Amino acid sequence: MATADNESMTLQVNHVRHMLAVASGKGGVGKSLVSAMAAVELARRGLKVGILDADITGPSIPRLFGLTARPESSMVGIIPPETATGVKIISMNLFLDDAGQPVIWRGPLLTSAIKQFWTDVAWGDLDILIVDLPPGTADVPLTAFQSLPVDGIFMVTTPQELASMIVEKAAGLAKQMNKPILGIVENMAMVTCPHCGEAFELFGPSHAEELADHIGAPVLARLPIDPTVAALADTGHVEDVKMAAFAPVTEALAEYITTPSTVFAAPNPVPASKASYSPCSCDSKD
Amino acid sequence: MATADNESMTLQVNHVRHMLAVASGKGGVGKSLVSAMAAVELARRGLKVGILDADITGPSIPRLFGLTARPESSMVGIIPPETATGVKIISMNLFLDDAGQPVIWRGPLLTSAIKQFWTDVAWGDLDILIVDLPPGTADVPLTAFQSLPVDGIFMVTTPQELASMIVEKAAGLAKQMNKPILGIVENMAMVTCPHCGEAFELFGPSHAEELADHIGAPVLARLPIDPTVAALADTGHVEDVKMAAFAPVTEALAEYITTPSTVFAAPNPVPASKASYSPCSCDSKD
Repeated sequence: MATADNESMTLQVNHVRHMLAVASGKGGVGKSLVSAMAAVELARRGLKVGILDADITGPSIPRLFGLTARPESSMVGIIPPETATGVKIISMNLFLDDAGQPVIWRGPLLTSAIKQFWTDVAWGDLDILIVDLPPGTADVPLTAFQSLPVDGIFMVTTPQELASMIVEKAAGLAKQMNKPILGIVENMAMVTCPHCGEAFELFGPSHAEELADHIGAPVLARLPIDPTVAALADTGHVEDVKMAAFAPVTEALAEYITTPSTVFAAPNPVPASKASYSPCSCDSKD
Repeated sequence: MATADNESMTLQVNHVRHMLAVASGKGGVGKSLVSAMAAVELARRGLKVGILDADITGPSIPRLFGLTARPESSMVGIIPPETATGVKIISMNLFLDDAGQPVIWRGPLLTSAIKQFWTDVAWGDLDILIVDLPPGTADVPLTAFQSLPVDGIFMVTTPQELASMIVEKAAGLAKQMNKPILGIVENMAMVTCPHCGEAFELFGPSHAEELADHIGAPVLARLPIDPTVAALADTGHVEDVKMAAFAPVTEALAEYITTPSTVFAAPNPVPASKASYSPCSCDSKD
């Protein structure tokens, strides 16, 4: 990675207005999908967006975008590759020869990588840098909150009580670090049967509102789970996903970017059963 | 926790025949559910079973069993609480006043806790101790493979390619540590609509066989996802879950316990679409 000289040059050329961490505490709730969809929607609005994939040992972001380009180095630091919609991305998997290769690192190396993804990368001019955190409340989230200028957090959860309990732990970490939780996104709220068209709650009734009361942040959206979206995300076409239920998240983020001191009011999220989404008609990305 | 004196006494009284790690690399794939169901099924067969919940920052095991008893200490070490079916459990959440309280620890503390969960706990006489690992390939899985006498690993995955890629990383760690991967369990393979009864693949087609070829271990079972099971697990009644598709996993484990050198042959797992499960008629646990 870059040298100390590069680091100072990098920090001189970078101008990142906001840094949003997407956290949950629990794995597999869709943090990376939420990070990616948020980035794409904001980029579509003409905003300059980057994603720092802080999940060093289980990075998902490059796969969602079908991105395999290895980052190049320049005089001012590592150049983050850009996706078709112009989202700049840095992820550990972009530095590996084989995406399935394990990164067997203990805490100090992980935290060092996270810091370098911020200080040694030529992010340039960004309206928002989204930090996709790994599960847990150990080294990486702690370092992200201590060493990066995170000024807002989204918590991602799923309807299970178990998920709520673990998300509460992550919220506790955020509070101890004095980082504002802007809102909660409940993912996998329900699914629509492709055979009969009926919606049902795959993981039982929502606990998002209880969680919201407990951690003092609004529920921004309840997102459905859909095989079409899963297939697009899994094949590197997350930029082709359109999901109506996601709109309140995009709105909240756009507001946060323009008026940073705003505390979100709870919107009336689109009920997941009413949500619709379809691949957009934009060009394929790879 | 226990002192050094206790530690030596603990190791004298413990007799654990097998230690199985349940790993995936990726979060949210159902490692804890697989660990819990395996433990319950083996306990039902009269085997002596324990679960060491190695996910210090996101522990799920006590919630699945509805277990809240704080472990007591004795002359020979910490006494693991037992569930209704007689499974002995140690988890960080059993030591917290509030289950939602975050454990904000860096690597060295995490690894110390994992070691103590083994050396300072009076596990007693066990046929098998199941170690439920956290996601990733960082401190905790590494310590588990280096410091605990793990003699077999189950990999849990879901149908997404993304999950396969990250499970491959965890398998890479296991191989580097010379730990045998006994088999793969594919979770969330499909779901049956409660309205029309049709099954569909929520996360797209399976990639388990490709993964199996790649890491050289058989697919033991493809498990469906079901709101009934999710609800039982979420309310602390995992001991009431009965899932026909899980039978090959129990069979493989029973074989592993009696003939440790056996390399599993790939069974013909019950197709998830044919799988049935229902709450069993056994007594409620709380």
